[in-house]
Amino acid sequence: MAFAISAGAKIVTVPSSIDEGFALPPLEKFEALITPRTKGILICNPNNPTGYLYTMKEMLQIRDLVKKYDLFLFSDEVYREFCYTGAPYISAFHLPGVEQNVVLIDSVSKRYNECGIRIGAIITKHKELKQNVMKFCQARLSPPLLGQIVAEASIDAGTDYMLMTYNEYVERRKFLIDGLNRIPGCYSPIPMGAFYTVVSLPVDDADRFCEWCLNDFEYEGATVFMAPASGFYTTPGMGKREVRMAYVLNKADLGHALKVLTEALRAYPGKTAEAPQ
Amino acid sequence: MAFAISAGAKIVTVPSSIDEGFALPPLEKFEALITPRTKGILICNPNNPTGYLYTMKEMLQIRDLVKKYDLFLFSDEVYREFCYTGAPYISAFHLPGVEQNVVLIDSVSKRYNECGIRIGAIITKHKELKQNVMKFCQARLSPPLLGQIVAEASIDAGTDYMLMTYNEYVERRKFLIDGLNRIPGCYSPIPMGAFYTVVSLPVDDADRFCEWCLNDFEYEGATVFMAPASGFYTTPGMGKREVRMAYVLNKADLGHALKVLTEALRAYPGKTAEAPQ
Repeated sequence: MAFAISAGAKIVTVPSSIDEGFALPPLEKFEALITPRTKGILICNPNNPTGYLYTMKEMLQIRDLVKKYDLFLFSDEVYREFCYTGAPYISAFHLPGVEQNVVLIDSVSKRYNECGIRIGAIITKHKELKQNVMKFCQARLSPPLLGQIVAEASIDAGTDYMLMTYNEYVERRKFLIDGLNRIPGCYSPIPMGAFYTVVSLPVDDADRFCEWCLNDFEYEGATVFMAPASGFYTTPGMGKREVRMAYVLNKADLGHALKVLTEALRAYPGKTAEAPQ
Repeated sequence: MAFAISAGAKIVTVPSSIDEGFALPPLEKFEALITPRTKGILICNPNNPTGYLYTMKEMLQIRDLVKKYDLFLFSDEVYREFCYTGAPYISAFHLPGVEQNVVLIDSVSKRYNECGIRIGAIITKHKELKQNVMKFCQARLSPPLLGQIVAEASIDAGTDYMLMTYNEYVERRKFLIDGLNRIPGCYSPIPMGAFYTVVSLPVDDADRFCEWCLNDFEYEGATVFMAPASGFYTTPGMGKREVRMAYVLNKADLGHALKVLTEALRAYPGKTAEAPQ
């Protein structure tokens, strides 16, 4: 968002909600916002922060929009190795008829757990865009040298590493989501990809609750650190009782975090009795 | 230049020339260009590509301008360890009365020979600017992790390494500049800092000569690779017979390069008989 704004782009958002499990909003909501100045649609799939994975049907709907209005389809697919539905992954580049429109965004950050390595890629068949991206590359001279070496070596990691990581996330996902949905008043849809989930909590204000956890609460010397979901929405008021959690800790630590969260929700002065929306 | 333009800034240049040894142009030339929209002056000191080092007198002149018009003084000082005049280095931050105006740009690239590490710094006492830079830092999340580790470790390099590097550049500078000025028709001022020099060559067009060296010339299987200086000027026509050379090779290789350059100038179809301007 910050980079888009400073490049002079105007971002218009189409909100999805926890009630719908963060599914793709109806196409009419997109079409209502498209103007002659609209340049492209951006999706993140599998999604950060929701863990949602677009279905074939949804991807084809996006394809139709992109084709109809001749838009770019910016598709952030950095979590694409982490899909838990069993169905084959649908990349934007699998969509027939929009090959020239797709701009895929990739990174070694998630695939190989190399967030600080700072090596990514933009993949597109669009000639003019490629030529313009090249100008930025030349102005920057070079991505980090050591990162380039690490990223190149990582390609040889092989399927063993990928499978081990995948299986570990499958386990953590089940463990965390089951645990969350057992806490009274908590609700998390089942994320289908990535390693995040958005959880609705029985609190008055998730921003305040997260701050309270860090400043005013501890259980046996520990607390929980969550990202309030409001910052992921652009619609004021949305996500007010939601937080994003990442299941990047091992299962023992996730278990401990669930225990601490349960205690925090019990002690929090702003807890709400009723089930959250 | 590319980043300034894409941020919406208008860059206005004040040309210096090889005839004046790349000294600071007269202050009137700066003042004639300053308008109410002028935000700052940018200098690179010691200078890339010229190797020029601003004198105390010149720095005080810049200071007076900055103060009079309340401008930012963006001072790129990444080569400040490499000054060969014996006089103490004058940083923009040494100038009294403009402490709030100075924005110093630093990097480990040159100091520790770590160009690909991609770790630098912006140093300023200007509160509002610091707060805004922080927004960019937060949007970017993090500079490269491995680069941060390398850069931090480099601070412990100690004076031995710095002195060794310094002495090596002093030797190379003398060797290269002496050698260049002995080639008929060549002229290089004596660079006072950094590890570059701009050389005037007896050729019709330095862009064409550099290209010819790479495509159409070899001497005993070798050629020379130089940066045409025209790309460092913004005034069309300036630097037409000039190239930038970096003395980053060891002395034996520099000697070889001088020999190959001499032969290239002999063989080049577009050589000019007269001494260059």
